[in-house]
Amino acid sequence: MNAPDPVAGKAPLPKPLTEALAARFGKRFSTSDAVRLQHGKDESSYAPAPPDAVVFAESTEEVSAIAALCHAHHVPMIAYGTGTSLEGHLLAIHGGVCIDISAMNRVLCIRGEDLDATVQPGVTRKQLNAELHDTGLFFPIDPGADASLGGMAATRASGTNAVRYGTMRENVLGMTVVLADGSIIKTGGRARKSSAGYDLTRLMIGSEGTLGIITELTVRLYPIPEAISSAVCAFPNIEAAVNTVIQVIQIGIPIARIELLDALALKGINRYSKTSLREAPTLFFEFHGSPANVKEQAHSVAEIAATHGGMDFDWATRPEDRSRLWQARHDAYYACLGLKPGSRALTTDVCVPISRLADCINETVADLEASQLQAPIVGHVGDGNFHVVLLVDPDDASEVAQAHVFSNRLVERALGMEGTCTGEHGIGFGKARYMAQEHGVAALTVMRAIKHALDPDNLMNPGKILPSA
Amino acid sequence: MNAPDPVAGKAPLPKPLTEALAARFGKRFSTSDAVRLQHGKDESSYAPAPPDAVVFAESTEEVSAIAALCHAHHVPMIAYGTGTSLEGHLLAIHGGVCIDISAMNRVLCIRGEDLDATVQPGVTRKQLNAELHDTGLFFPIDPGADASLGGMAATRASGTNAVRYGTMRENVLGMTVVLADGSIIKTGGRARKSSAGYDLTRLMIGSEGTLGIITELTVRLYPIPEAISSAVCAFPNIEAAVNTVIQVIQIGIPIARIELLDALALKGINRYSKTSLREAPTLFFEFHGSPANVKEQAHSVAEIAATHGGMDFDWATRPEDRSRLWQARHDAYYACLGLKPGSRALTTDVCVPISRLADCINETVADLEASQLQAPIVGHVGDGNFHVVLLVDPDDASEVAQAHVFSNRLVERALGMEGTCTGEHGIGFGKARYMAQEHGVAALTVMRAIKHALDPDNLMNPGKILPSA
Repeated sequence: MNAPDPVAGKAPLPKPLTEALAARFGKRFSTSDAVRLQHGKDESSYAPAPPDAVVFAESTEEVSAIAALCHAHHVPMIAYGTGTSLEGHLLAIHGGVCIDISAMNRVLCIRGEDLDATVQPGVTRKQLNAELHDTGLFFPIDPGADASLGGMAATRASGTNAVRYGTMRENVLGMTVVLADGSIIKTGGRARKSSAGYDLTRLMIGSEGTLGIITELTVRLYPIPEAISSAVCAFPNIEAAVNTVIQVIQIGIPIARIELLDALALKGINRYSKTSLREAPTLFFEFHGSPANVKEQAHSVAEIAATHGGMDFDWATRPEDRSRLWQARHDAYYACLGLKPGSRALTTDVCVPISRLADCINETVADLEASQLQAPIVGHVGDGNFHVVLLVDPDDASEVAQAHVFSNRLVERALGMEGTCTGEHGIGFGKARYMAQEHGVAALTVMRAIKHALDPDNLMNPGKILPSA
Repeated sequence: MNAPDPVAGKAPLPKPLTEALAARFGKRFSTSDAVRLQHGKDESSYAPAPPDAVVFAESTEEVSAIAALCHAHHVPMIAYGTGTSLEGHLLAIHGGVCIDISAMNRVLCIRGEDLDATVQPGVTRKQLNAELHDTGLFFPIDPGADASLGGMAATRASGTNAVRYGTMRENVLGMTVVLADGSIIKTGGRARKSSAGYDLTRLMIGSEGTLGIITELTVRLYPIPEAISSAVCAFPNIEAAVNTVIQVIQIGIPIARIELLDALALKGINRYSKTSLREAPTLFFEFHGSPANVKEQAHSVAEIAATHGGMDFDWATRPEDRSRLWQARHDAYYACLGLKPGSRALTTDVCVPISRLADCINETVADLEASQLQAPIVGHVGDGNFHVVLLVDPDDASEVAQAHVFSNRLVERALGMEGTCTGEHGIGFGKARYMAQEHGVAALTVMRAIKHALDPDNLMNPGKILPSA
């Protein structure tokens, strides 16, 4: 869909560069079609745009050496972790060298007293949590996919836990970053807070590899709650569910997760997960705290839900019951795909102030109903962020086009409600055209000035975030 | 102390600039000695460096017009809020125009459902909380002084509530900022989270007016907890207190405030506040939650404190008892000054990983004991941040010099423990010399590149944050 130019037609890599990379990296340097193709796509619906070569780096020094070589030869470079991005972030639309950091996957240090860990960027969130086993600690950011932490930082990822634990923005203390010319900087540090100068850590988080390549990061950890309980509750309509969420947050219940799924998503889940949940707008809750406290939280939420017409409030404290409920939520994406066999998903990602969320979803549902599109809705409703999972037949050009037009209307709607075109997926290739509208031309000019200051030759993941001038 | 060059000797303001400012701003433009002197100092111990003129701005458009004029005439500009900064942030060490934004003090909008408020930068934290009265919401960041929110954002301030609610970094959603040439940008937005491009909000937070002048900000609000309780507990030594804090945080008690004061600070408090607290290392706690939950939190903390030798654990739920305890903590600064009548305070601000906090404080106490300096210690111990309040006779040059040398040793010690030279006060004029050591030359070069990209003529608060090249 909406295919950017493939690599064909671009200048080949300079021979001295390929020779230097081949000499240094041997079998870890590849120009094979299979390897290039694998690295020229992500989980978006954009057509692949393979890089000219792939290098498998194993250390900060290697990434630095590759960057210095690419810089010397004016060749673009794109970092690659797990390939789970959703907006064409990894597409080599200007060719160049893909730097695969997935082998940089060691947890370097876990510091229980300080509640932090230093990891290489290829460590995935599940891997980190597996390695934290027995420490009593966990890393909360969960974007669904088992993404690499470097990639999650680069896209400012979040997910279901953000309402309580924040996003990657709040959970990275410091980083090592390789810049366009191969120089290596350390950002931030290990102090919990600091007022010492410009916040380069936050500048790099969300920069999608356009300012630097993250080669190490120190992340915050949290104690595994003494008790966790879950609940699920169906509602007569979207407003009732959203108003429940607003009230829950306003009275200060420290809810850990609060997820909204619409009736169609529930239908998909029932089919996929063999559950028999009511096929109505539904909230999934998770509570963290002491045993008494989670009980109290669930009780308060049940009361609030009841005043908004909540039905079938089902509270689960046993791990197997919790797992069953949340597994169903986690599987929602695949469950949605199952609603239309053979389809691919085009997933939207707007986020609006929560006071506008019900309006935004309702207008979106009306828009969907007026179309022929099949599209369940799942939302991180505590943050005002929701995804419309547009199920399209990739071979049906008209349907694909309709989905893109719908998605565009949704972004316009969200921007009109003081929202953002992307709550957690990032801009990548796909949403660069909304940057001026969302931020204004003056702020976009500042972003361009920063990009130019750090990467004057536009070699780091070119064509992403910033629209062509 | 350590006086920068006063304004004398610098070129006067260009006449066309003063004429243009006088014509537009009338009585809101001043070059009187009294007004200039008042705007050429902060609460640090540095000698004043008055600006050449002061303009009292009342809107974003006015700030923009002043900036455009200063830019056209290559004249420095410094924003001024409440004058409560602590590192010489406001000193006009290169002369120029001070833009006083204290009259931009309107709360523009409070949005209860979205838990946010949009304010002008001169609104102080106490004013905001007063205007939030009756909404059930509050703004938690409390740096002690009744600072302006613009200034708090500019210095990335935090304070006693940061362990639970974060710092200004986590609590600003978006801003309006005037750049060096007078252009106006909007950063961030009202969505709770966004992955749309470079995080200009976080870049401006902590930039101390060197990249832009904040003229509006949208901040996060929180529900006032249903119940608040406080406790105070003395310990046989610093380690016991710090180990209590580590354990409290590690088991996930969602403590709102946890403050450490040393024996000397307690002595000052007893004298100043007529209390009879044990003069030993002491923790002050505050718990937020439901009535049952705060009781449970306090009970858990009391148990942990007891295993570390905690004494006289005193738990207060009645508002008047809580107020009495926390008033004593809030008055600690003045109580400390009272320990040595006629003294001024030179306040340090290092922050280290909490695992190193006891070591850092103990080495610092040993250092103090070896000196003749009198200096109580107060700390935001949940964050690893503590202040040594060095009480010096401003007329005793030898004592002043000794305090500066001590402060320098403390910064070196903290940096050696992976800490920062400033947890919450900022770099200003006073700590620019530590920037290279803390961040490394490569990262400092990036900061300089960003400064140059946004303010190529170095007109915005020049001489702050970045050391002279």
